[in-house]
Amino acid sequence: MTVSRWAPDARERLEAAALDLFVENGYEETTVAQIADRAGLNRATFFRHFADKREVLFGGEDMLTGLFADGIRDASPDATLTECLQAAFAAAGVALTPQQRAKAAQRVRVAAANSEVQERGLLKRARMARSISAALRMRGADELTARLGAEVGMLAFSIAVERWMGADNDEPFPLHAAAALSDLQERAADLGASL
Amino acid sequence: MTVSRWAPDARERLEAAALDLFVENGYEETTVAQIADRAGLNRATFFRHFADKREVLFGGEDMLTGLFADGIRDASPDATLTECLQAAFAAAGVALTPQQRAKAAQRVRVAAANSEVQERGLLKRARMARSISAALRMRGADELTARLGAEVGMLAFSIAVERWMGADNDEPFPLHAAAALSDLQERAADLGASL
Repeated sequence: MTVSRWAPDARERLEAAALDLFVENGYEETTVAQIADRAGLNRATFFRHFADKREVLFGGEDMLTGLFADGIRDASPDATLTECLQAAFAAAGVALTPQQRAKAAQRVRVAAANSEVQERGLLKRARMARSISAALRMRGADELTARLGAEVGMLAFSIAVERWMGADNDEPFPLHAAAALSDLQERAADLGASL
Repeated sequence: MTVSRWAPDARERLEAAALDLFVENGYEETTVAQIADRAGLNRATFFRHFADKREVLFGGEDMLTGLFADGIRDASPDATLTECLQAAFAAAGVALTPQQRAKAAQRVRVAAANSEVQERGLLKRARMARSISAALRMRGADELTARLGAEVGMLAFSIAVERWMGADNDEPFPLHAAAALSDLQERAADLGASL
């Protein structure tokens, strides 16, 4: 593969190359040099885009963190907490394309095999939760409501991603998210009921 | 300090020595050899008790994971989800002593300064949540209810730890946890209301 002098799509190429190599050869066994080589780039370019080997798996999370906050900020002024979360998931829909869906399954396999990767994923998840919580606070939610909303939102997001990955149709992500959130809201209202 | 030939309290001594050194000199700067030396033990003993330097900070979480599951399993047969979580926190109370309370503040300072430590803490938190969720499933909760219960339970736990650490009295941990859970339950019933 020819090494481009400049590559506007370098980030995406590095992400795709890394995922392929992690699945083919294992996360531990893959080096940054191999990822850069597969992408037709060099190590220095890799480190311009990602701080370390783990980060190449989590560019999507960084983007979602921003999209969630945008969605909540732009929700209608009288939106309820669940409507704010729906707005966050609707905003995230632009990043959760059918192409991303194919990659999501690969990423789950890589993370399942490596606890370092899981740890980084959890750090990203915690940041996403803090972003949701901060956006809810900006709308006037009290601290506990904002933190609860963020945890319920992140759980709805996880469940929706699982359903979206496992679905045998092309239902867009925001529909899965709306359904998961509604399922959780029903149960949240009933925490004091018998199991 | 004399090096004991055997030390039934080696684990506790290593934990205390590590925390002191992390606070005094920084987490990154402290070596396992220094921790062992401060505890009057050797490196080999350290690695019999802990897989790596980060683990020495999280023995408490491993114990709590088991106590939470025990509490839920032993709750009365007709307990509601929130009563199961209260039982988990009551069981955890034995480990969350006033002595642990003093150490908790040190651990928060160490974690705040090091993202590797935060990542490990999040992995432990995820395991605690899975333990709660599995224990709720064993009592017949459906999967979503169990996962929601685990997230609400872990959030109540975090809030209770913050309040317990910050309190100017010696109110025992389970009382803080019961109050935090009750605060969250009230908000959870109201996710569909205006912010």
